[in-house]
Amino acid sequence: MAYDNNNIFAKILRGEIPAIKLYEDEQTLSFMDIMPQVEGHCLVIPKVAAETIFDLPAGYGDACVATVQKVGTALKKAFSTDGIVIYQLNGTDAGQTVPHLHFHLLPTSLGTLMGGRRHASEMADADQLKIVAQKIIAAM
Amino acid sequence: MAYDNNNIFAKILRGEIPAIKLYEDEQTLSFMDIMPQVEGHCLVIPKVAAETIFDLPAGYGDACVATVQKVGTALKKAFSTDGIVIYQLNGTDAGQTVPHLHFHLLPTSLGTLMGGRRHASEMADADQLKIVAQKIIAAM
Repeated sequence: MAYDNNNIFAKILRGEIPAIKLYEDEQTLSFMDIMPQVEGHCLVIPKVAAETIFDLPAGYGDACVATVQKVGTALKKAFSTDGIVIYQLNGTDAGQTVPHLHFHLLPTSLGTLMGGRRHASEMADADQLKIVAQKIIAAM
Repeated sequence: MAYDNNNIFAKILRGEIPAIKLYEDEQTLSFMDIMPQVEGHCLVIPKVAAETIFDLPAGYGDACVATVQKVGTALKKAFSTDGIVIYQLNGTDAGQTVPHLHFHLLPTSLGTLMGGRRHASEMADADQLKIVAQKIIAAM
């Protein structure tokens, strides 16, 4: 399928809609998930037209890992845990909702996650999310 | 924590214990998860002493993504789905059981996964796993 330039993450990358940003560099952006499954749930996305992991060009794998390391380390510090779950859904069959490749980062356990809220079920309060974002940014 | 050279994935990399291998190159190895959550559940690991994503050296992010793309594409073909869930647990707090960085690849949906078997709960029959592995390898 051709990349949809109007998906919400493409709009966030173009600055057309807001996001609570945590970190940004030339190849990646990290921001808060607005439907968090746990406190601190955030995303890392590449700045390239990639719908799924299968579309990611060479060079972006390292860039995404570097940002995951940076933001994930901050999550560990901010939430006093050594546990970071990373997941990434490819294709509507997998439950992918936004057609731009994104890595979910969650300071939690798989058990908690599987017993907890499913993704994209409940919108978070924006002010509360900003407070959480500040906590993560302060830990970077 | 220092990398434990005696973890089971380190032993698989050294050839000391067997694994049902799917794909291998200089920097990565892919093999079947012996406690599959769904049929086709397999792993991609880097050939480097990295306990979690936080220990992965530059260059291995791209290598892991390339192997995930290769094996994941085969999974899509072998199981006639466009849905590939990738997850990766960092730290015992997250539920990581083997202290060598590994990416889980599953031809399924997050919903199925969250409603299904938890990780590492049930050992698969080795012969059955080999049949599944052959199906994936044939699709590569």
